[in-house]
Amino acid sequence: MIRVAIIGASGYTGAESIEILLRHPAAKPVYLTALPEECGPLAEVFGQFKGRCDLHIEPLDFNKLAELADVVLCCLPHKVSMGFVPRLLDTGLKVIDFSADYRLKDVAVYEKFYEVKHTDKRNLPHAAFGLPELFREQIKTAKLVANPGCYPTGAALAIAPLLKNGLVETKSVIVNAVTGVSGAGRNPSSVFHFPNMNENFFAYGIGSHRHMPEIEQIAGQIANTDVNILFQPHVGPFNRGILSTVYCEPQRELGSDELLKLYRNFYHSEHFVRVLDRAPAVKDVAGTNYCHVYATVAKGKVICLSAIDNLVKGASGQAIQNMNIIFGLDETLGLK
Amino acid sequence: MIRVAIIGASGYTGAESIEILLRHPAAKPVYLTALPEECGPLAEVFGQFKGRCDLHIEPLDFNKLAELADVVLCCLPHKVSMGFVPRLLDTGLKVIDFSADYRLKDVAVYEKFYEVKHTDKRNLPHAAFGLPELFREQIKTAKLVANPGCYPTGAALAIAPLLKNGLVETKSVIVNAVTGVSGAGRNPSSVFHFPNMNENFFAYGIGSHRHMPEIEQIAGQIANTDVNILFQPHVGPFNRGILSTVYCEPQRELGSDELLKLYRNFYHSEHFVRVLDRAPAVKDVAGTNYCHVYATVAKGKVICLSAIDNLVKGASGQAIQNMNIIFGLDETLGLK
Amino acid sequence: MIRVAIIGASGYTGAESIEILLRHPAAKPVYLTALPEECGPLAEVFGQFKGRCDLHIEPLDFNKLAELADVVLCCLPHKVSMGFVPRLLDTGLKVIDFSADYRLKDVAVYEKFYEVKHTDKRNLPHAAFGLPELFREQIKTAKLVANPGCYPTGAALAIAPLLKNGLVETKSVIVNAVTGVSGAGRNPSSVFHFPNMNENFFAYGIGSHRHMPEIEQIAGQIANTDVNILFQPHVGPFNRGILSTVYCEPQRELGSDELLKLYRNFYHSEHFVRVLDRAPAVKDVAGTNYCHVYATVAKGKVICLSAIDNLVKGASGQAIQNMNIIFGLDETLGLK
Amino acid sequence: MIRVAIIGASGYTGAESIEILLRHPAAKPVYLTALPEECGPLAEVFGQFKGRCDLHIEPLDFNKLAELADVVLCCLPHKVSMGFVPRLLDTGLKVIDFSADYRLKDVAVYEKFYEVKHTDKRNLPHAAFGLPELFREQIKTAKLVANPGCYPTGAALAIAPLLKNGLVETKSVIVNAVTGVSGAGRNPSSVFHFPNMNENFFAYGIGSHRHMPEIEQIAGQIANTDVNILFQPHVGPFNRGILSTVYCEPQRELGSDELLKLYRNFYHSEHFVRVLDRAPAVKDVAGTNYCHVYATVAKGKVICLSAIDNLVKGASGQAIQNMNIIFGLDETLGLK
Repeated sequence: MIRVAIIGASGYTGAESIEILLRHPAAKPVYLTALPEECGPLAEVFGQFKGRCDLHIEPLDFNKLAELADVVLCCLPHKVSMGFVPRLLDTGLKVIDFSADYRLKDVAVYEKFYEVKHTDKRNLPHAAFGLPELFREQIKTAKLVANPGCYPTGAALAIAPLLKNGLVETKSVIVNAVTGVSGAGRNPSSVFHFPNMNENFFAYGIGSHRHMPEIEQIAGQIANTDVNILFQPHVGPFNRGILSTVYCEPQRELGSDELLKLYRNFYHSEHFVRVLDRAPAVKDVAGTNYCHVYATVAKGKVICLSAIDNLVKGASGQAIQNMNIIFGLDETLGLK
Repeated sequence: MIRVAIIGASGYTGAESIEILLRHPAAKPVYLTALPEECGPLAEVFGQFKGRCDLHIEPLDFNKLAELADVVLCCLPHKVSMGFVPRLLDTGLKVIDFSADYRLKDVAVYEKFYEVKHTDKRNLPHAAFGLPELFREQIKTAKLVANPGCYPTGAALAIAPLLKNGLVETKSVIVNAVTGVSGAGRNPSSVFHFPNMNENFFAYGIGSHRHMPEIEQIAGQIANTDVNILFQPHVGPFNRGILSTVYCEPQRELGSDELLKLYRNFYHSEHFVRVLDRAPAVKDVAGTNYCHVYATVAKGKVICLSAIDNLVKGASGQAIQNMNIIFGLDETLGLK
Repeated sequence: MIRVAIIGASGYTGAESIEILLRHPAAKPVYLTALPEECGPLAEVFGQFKGRCDLHIEPLDFNKLAELADVVLCCLPHKVSMGFVPRLLDTGLKVIDFSADYRLKDVAVYEKFYEVKHTDKRNLPHAAFGLPELFREQIKTAKLVANPGCYPTGAALAIAPLLKNGLVETKSVIVNAVTGVSGAGRNPSSVFHFPNMNENFFAYGIGSHRHMPEIEQIAGQIANTDVNILFQPHVGPFNRGILSTVYCEPQRELGSDELLKLYRNFYHSEHFVRVLDRAPAVKDVAGTNYCHVYATVAKGKVICLSAIDNLVKGASGQAIQNMNIIFGLDETLGLK
Repeated sequence: MIRVAIIGASGYTGAESIEILLRHPAAKPVYLTALPEECGPLAEVFGQFKGRCDLHIEPLDFNKLAELADVVLCCLPHKVSMGFVPRLLDTGLKVIDFSADYRLKDVAVYEKFYEVKHTDKRNLPHAAFGLPELFREQIKTAKLVANPGCYPTGAALAIAPLLKNGLVETKSVIVNAVTGVSGAGRNPSSVFHFPNMNENFFAYGIGSHRHMPEIEQIAGQIANTDVNILFQPHVGPFNRGILSTVYCEPQRELGSDELLKLYRNFYHSEHFVRVLDRAPAVKDVAGTNYCHVYATVAKGKVICLSAIDNLVKGASGQAIQNMNIIFGLDETLGLK
């Protein structure tokens, strides 16, 4: 039984990780930590665990952590995480980090978008990028996995087959994405106050969202050349899910059937990516680790779409998938 | 043209009052105030007024107020309002107060439920209770109107015909009510954060909600005897509306047809109260100043139901209705 | 591995049963049937099963059923079910029936509320009522289990401790309940069309809902005397969950602490019923088989509340709980 | 007082037109018609009109229409409308038609996208396209106005300043749009059944939506050259509103400030189009006839966004705006 610690367990990704681990046949949560003011019995912090998990969320104690756990899911915020990860690794534990701190290989890009000095350049180069469908080999042997952002996961899985096969222009990819509100985290704010967000829909972070360089980095690795991506996020009045609608310019004439066949081949052996023969819907992947993708040609452009659950395939589910890989388990264990 | 000032214009009832006044043929908003940190162009505080109203929300200046306005809608919170109302009245303006500070005639009850000394016992006795369908005569000549709470409005209109006619036991009235989230105000909080409130439903304030004594006070005035009411509020994932489901013990055998006839007679000349021949729905009154009511007999009990918009008939619409009455206008002017 | 057939697999309770069985360690879905026009690959009928279950929904073939399955979850509608159950039992399979056809022991009451002759009086007396927390012993040896209605499950678990201990008047129990829209089933209709139901809230079935006699039957068995219950359902704009707010008259003076202690004792050994020290919320039980209950005293009345997921503890989860009992498994297996 | 008839009054655009007319100071609804099975007192068809409008919806009688009304809002579906409009015009009334039947000037395009022969080629050439901000002069003298589609209204107002000034490539405009569910009309269906649509989000009509040629036609008229537009609609779980996010390739280097200035100049004298200095939100225009627009430059592309209420500026509000123009009234009368 793999013993899992969750650092930063009081947020949505912490809670989702616990949900998954409670039904995992080969892993279990053993140690939950958060800031002192967010500690207490888990079932009081998240009412849905009443009777299902007796753990308490406690302030982090590195000795206790080292003793109790085999692996750490580090659910701390961007910028905070890199202050903890070195000490987590020093305990000898494997670490799966949910923040952006170990995702961007180019420190300058990180420092520009996150407006802070990177303080752990020692471990950064050794972090595997935890998107198994594209980087499985590196994950297998990693001690530190940078779990991808939710938007980059959806976008990358939508466009990977096109970029890998050099079928589209790399200079003008547009990723238009919509997330549910859980993507904004658990801290209340005016904009996500129910009476404001309900019956609302809007774009944000125009031209400047922090997931843009992450998407470009993945895309560049797949395409083996620089890819210029305009990423435009939106938020809608639902809890979970991301729908990505990607627009590309084809390099040559492409038919819709040919495209779908290419997608099916590309994801042939991937359990969690399913190529549909119609446009995907957020509801069909909500609560699961699946990514539904679809691609077609319209008006001379390629449109590809993907749907994921931002908290599962976009965060906690993918982290458990990475954990399964690191520990040599069946990659799908405990996931649905 | 009646010139209307709104004190506390940065909350939902302030905004709803402005919405109504913008289409009122005989009144207009002229002066909006709030705490300094909530001031600014109205269209920046509430995006829906862009191009529709050029006023700014400013810090309150009593001289400016006295000069610009004929009447004040005082949308301050409970306990805060009674610190301002005396000075507002001293300017010679009519005041319609949205808080609970002038609703409860028994100071001891107020002080128990609001846990604060009442600081304006001078004006309290002269405040008319602003529920026109039941207390229209007092409103006509009032300088200060205590605009009723949203729950008391819905509950009182549902049971008034029964209590007025002495048809039900006054010792065991149960008011089970459900409100939309705008009733909780504009300040963000964990419980009303979209991902928590969406897909949720719960009861709160069991046996202790501050609207309970207000409902009992109105009921007692209608029944001309003490009425014991158990009021149980709930909140559901929608923006606007209150549905009240009231359970009473009949004093004598009553038929459903007889009941409905009695309701129709009671509200015969009331424009804003409509007796349906089916159960009311929140959507049918949303955005309007109407109250839909229905009553029937089931399993030996009387069930009566009412639906209102908590921000309109439950707050700002009713305030404008009161304003129309005070100024001798057609009571329905500017209201829909 | 218990092999499970689902008859009527194209509705919400069918889909939810499949969801649960896919993560059940000792049971699996093997045969799914529906009306011919609703047949096809499961993943096309319900998009969320893409890649997760390869079964097809087929027209019912009794021979195939007998060969493939050990137990039948019969998810057919009221009145239809009793036309199939006798033949299902004749195959020798255990049957857990989701309809009302085998719940009401008094045929006359059934025939009044469902307005149809009961056509299977042979099996009716042998059906166990599948609410394990109250009738576990009968379920253990049953060949036919009548899975309770969603409302009766929530209401019965809320009031059972009171009735069992004779603490409240049996003549005036009021059950005010609110359901999410999935309770209305999968067939589209004007009233549940998204633009109508969203931002809406209303009561229905006043004094006449079919779950009323079912609640009274259970209550009578617990109390060992006739119990008169006024059941008033409402529907709100959310997918899953039922909140029941029950009002009773105490037989003697009761304190809130005493009440809660009594509830805790009553449910001491029940895994799926959790007594809270605050009012329950639908979100905390959504997706789980748990029932959260709370009780207190207010204004001389007892208020008790329960929250369940109408599709899980109110239908498919409870059916799997019953299946586990029948087959001598740990009652909680596969459930969360 | 302009007397308005509404043909097809039983749908959402009919109801919204009545809502607007009830507060219009110079027009009123006088005659409402629908298919026989949808007739009855207005307040029974739409509960929100109880007490507010005593009209009945009746089967259409052309003689009665001619006698009672000055203008017809024809809210019939595509393909049906062109069967009625000739006779409506023959009565001598002005007609504002909500369908697509008179929008597309190229009959071949209409017949391709609507898969039916156009049966009123006589009146088609004389229909003014009812988007006042772009085609006001033609509307002033029109007897027949083709009220634009909701998507084309939002898209056209977002890109008009760019196309008019020749600032972007006309070969690669992408319009990514999201509508609320009321855009799908009032007929219930599985896909818009509340439990399916709630918590869902998806794309539809990929590369083939009927509003695509309409958007291209308007764009071509503004640009004075053919414009190739990829229009991709989505639907989200809210009732009202359309957010359009448009991606274009600039013809020359453009700054964000320059762009906004250009937008402000273009819409300088337009009451209902407001240029924001931030991204627009659907909630800010819901229930109003306003269009909020914004444009900026990001990653070498121009992004322009617009928000409208699909039922108001996208349908009934715009129709009343057109009516005001035709009758020489202040264009904003009765609109908010």
